[in-house]
Amino acid sequence: MTHPNDPSLRSFIAVAPTSDFPIQNLPYGVFSTPADPAPRVGVAIGDFILDLAALEAAGLLDAGAPVFAKPAINDFMALGPQAWTQVRRRISQLLRRDHPELRDNAALRQRALVARKDARLHLPLAVAGFTDFYSSKEHASNVGAMFRDKSNPLLPNWLHIPIGYNGRASTVVVSGTPVRRPCGQLKPPTAETPVFAPSRRLDFELEMGVVIGQGSRLGERLTEAQAEDMIFGFTLLNDWSARDVQQWEYVPLGPFQAKAFATTISPWIVTREALESFRVAGPRQDPEPLPYLRQSGRNNYDMTLDVSLRSAQMDAPQRICRTNFKYMYWSSVQQLVHHASSGCAMNVGDLLGSGTISGPERDQRGSMLELSWSGAEPLPLASGESRSFLEDGDTLSITGWCQGEGYRIGFGECEGTIQPAT
Amino acid sequence: MTHPNDPSLRSFIAVAPTSDFPIQNLPYGVFSTPADPAPRVGVAIGDFILDLAALEAAGLLDAGAPVFAKPAINDFMALGPQAWTQVRRRISQLLRRDHPELRDNAALRQRALVARKDARLHLPLAVAGFTDFYSSKEHASNVGAMFRDKSNPLLPNWLHIPIGYNGRASTVVVSGTPVRRPCGQLKPPTAETPVFAPSRRLDFELEMGVVIGQGSRLGERLTEAQAEDMIFGFTLLNDWSARDVQQWEYVPLGPFQAKAFATTISPWIVTREALESFRVAGPRQDPEPLPYLRQSGRNNYDMTLDVSLRSAQMDAPQRICRTNFKYMYWSSVQQLVHHASSGCAMNVGDLLGSGTISGPERDQRGSMLELSWSGAEPLPLASGESRSFLEDGDTLSITGWCQGEGYRIGFGECEGTIQPAT
Repeated sequence: MTHPNDPSLRSFIAVAPTSDFPIQNLPYGVFSTPADPAPRVGVAIGDFILDLAALEAAGLLDAGAPVFAKPAINDFMALGPQAWTQVRRRISQLLRRDHPELRDNAALRQRALVARKDARLHLPLAVAGFTDFYSSKEHASNVGAMFRDKSNPLLPNWLHIPIGYNGRASTVVVSGTPVRRPCGQLKPPTAETPVFAPSRRLDFELEMGVVIGQGSRLGERLTEAQAEDMIFGFTLLNDWSARDVQQWEYVPLGPFQAKAFATTISPWIVTREALESFRVAGPRQDPEPLPYLRQSGRNNYDMTLDVSLRSAQMDAPQRICRTNFKYMYWSSVQQLVHHASSGCAMNVGDLLGSGTISGPERDQRGSMLELSWSGAEPLPLASGESRSFLEDGDTLSITGWCQGEGYRIGFGECEGTIQPAT
Repeated sequence: MTHPNDPSLRSFIAVAPTSDFPIQNLPYGVFSTPADPAPRVGVAIGDFILDLAALEAAGLLDAGAPVFAKPAINDFMALGPQAWTQVRRRISQLLRRDHPELRDNAALRQRALVARKDARLHLPLAVAGFTDFYSSKEHASNVGAMFRDKSNPLLPNWLHIPIGYNGRASTVVVSGTPVRRPCGQLKPPTAETPVFAPSRRLDFELEMGVVIGQGSRLGERLTEAQAEDMIFGFTLLNDWSARDVQQWEYVPLGPFQAKAFATTISPWIVTREALESFRVAGPRQDPEPLPYLRQSGRNNYDMTLDVSLRSAQMDAPQRICRTNFKYMYWSSVQQLVHHASSGCAMNVGDLLGSGTISGPERDQRGSMLELSWSGAEPLPLASGESRSFLEDGDTLSITGWCQGEGYRIGFGECEGTIQPAT
């Protein structure tokens, strides 16, 4: 059987070359429809969603256990990498132009293919734990240069540890969920005492999320190969941040309420398998990491990432950043190996944020903090407005894709609109 | 009906005056037995566990939904404060000396009363999120004096914010679970580069855990009264910490692997209602907190907390700390109000660690770091050994109770034994 990643594969469903969802992708999401409001698992294909619960019920798709008539992909993920591979192969087969089972079954097509525009997309996974890393050298250097030491911006541990912290899992939301401007304690450096007020420095952070599909046991460390096998897929992630809250609260235990109000992810989880063809080498790591963090092979992904902003006055979004996932200094596998290095148990449904993804160029910076250089260089917008940080009514959208020959593997949108504080 | 907290109440089950579990307590736990290995909800009474699933099945206990034949108390908690009160009243009634329903039903007593020594105790709740605070002024001052500035040990934000960080929920374990010494990155100040090695400064932190029994919505802040109502109960908590890992990793995003390997809680969740009689005023807060954090009334609890250590060479545990929960500067309600202040959604089953509880005296310090003053003053043990930090084979145990007239409200033990690193 042709490998599901084969660029020559075509579906009987028409897919535009710029669609995020060709037959080579098959990302997982959770959706519902007005006719059937029960959230269930599907994969995106062109402008459609293939309803896996419907295929399962029809006896055309067997993952080994009934896992698709569920409001999250967790039960499917728990089946493990062999099931992931088998199911992806089967879905690929069912959607192929030259395979008749679904193509020629009009009644089933009617039930199992849902127009994406008619569906509501839900949070695709039940987030067990959310951990956020800080693994772009360019981002860490920009932040260090702004707030610490221009000539020596990286902290001493940064080149040795994929620095990360535990985030708040309860407020991970799916793309399209409005983001309420948070209130919090702010203390401008010149003020005597803090105030409790709406954040004035509301920011986004362009990140990738890694979805962990298998757990590990308490007290167990992971090898590079074990960690790789535990990664189910990737999602776009916006780690919304209130910079002024963060600045006042973060010493000595790290960000808390500054990042607890919302984290947005894209509705589609692109499998690690679908991204295999786009692996590239990461930056050279110098000094060499400690042995437990050493990796061989190509551990980054060549994935274009765009950020666009549309203010309430604008008719169309304006791109404010284009960078690439390949710039990350610490790979997702290294992050996961480090996460379990103390014996920390990992769970099915854990979500790891990559950390803000910036690149070497100015327009490759993945946050307003960096784009406006902490407000010193406000960003001009096409409407004549300018932005240092996000304002009420602004819509921030992240898109991302790997470019194949004649097709792209994408994620859909990771979008949120800022609502005024209450 | 007599209030379940009435000191004059007596059960038909004999309870020693020093037992943690008189009829005025009725803490919730999850247990199983060799005869019935399915974990289910029970309450501790004297040397017994009252099997609530058995009572529910017998039609003697109705919470409004079947919630006790479950491996966690979450479904019961989700029913809300009215159900908590009603169920506690009913259980109290069933256990009273002067109430015949259970007392005179030998067959049911046989099924529903399990000797505690024959039961296995499980983690009582499914931990949705774990957040750890830093709310003892004495502890924060001790740490600040050791590592920063003796004359000005508190950071500028400490008196304004109940400082906290997101912990790792996946590694919260029940008392008795062995604790594997973690490996991690260590870099002694004099070393050039870090090593990956077993922690040499393994520590405990004496804390209380607050169990959140009701959720809040994304974008919603909480009043003091709302937060109070969401608190289901309290548990003893040991936030095991690898100080050397923490020292090297914690800048700038806070503790991560240093506290991810294990957090131990007591098997019994004592309800907020059972502790009502022991409320006391907390320390005066100066400067006055911002309005959203202001509290009226008595917001702390007069609860004695003991820590004991037994090395592999010792026959009996040695008490190394006796302090009191009442010293906490920020109350549990203030912590919860702050936690939701950005609009962060709280969930049923969230666990909030109070932060290390130290008191003003030397033997009231709630960690080895403080007791040995970072190793400068090793603690002598009765065996002739001494301890700066925990060694392999050491058993660390926390107990705690509120003392009533002729009875005490306790938690059982929060214990763990250190196993060598792998």
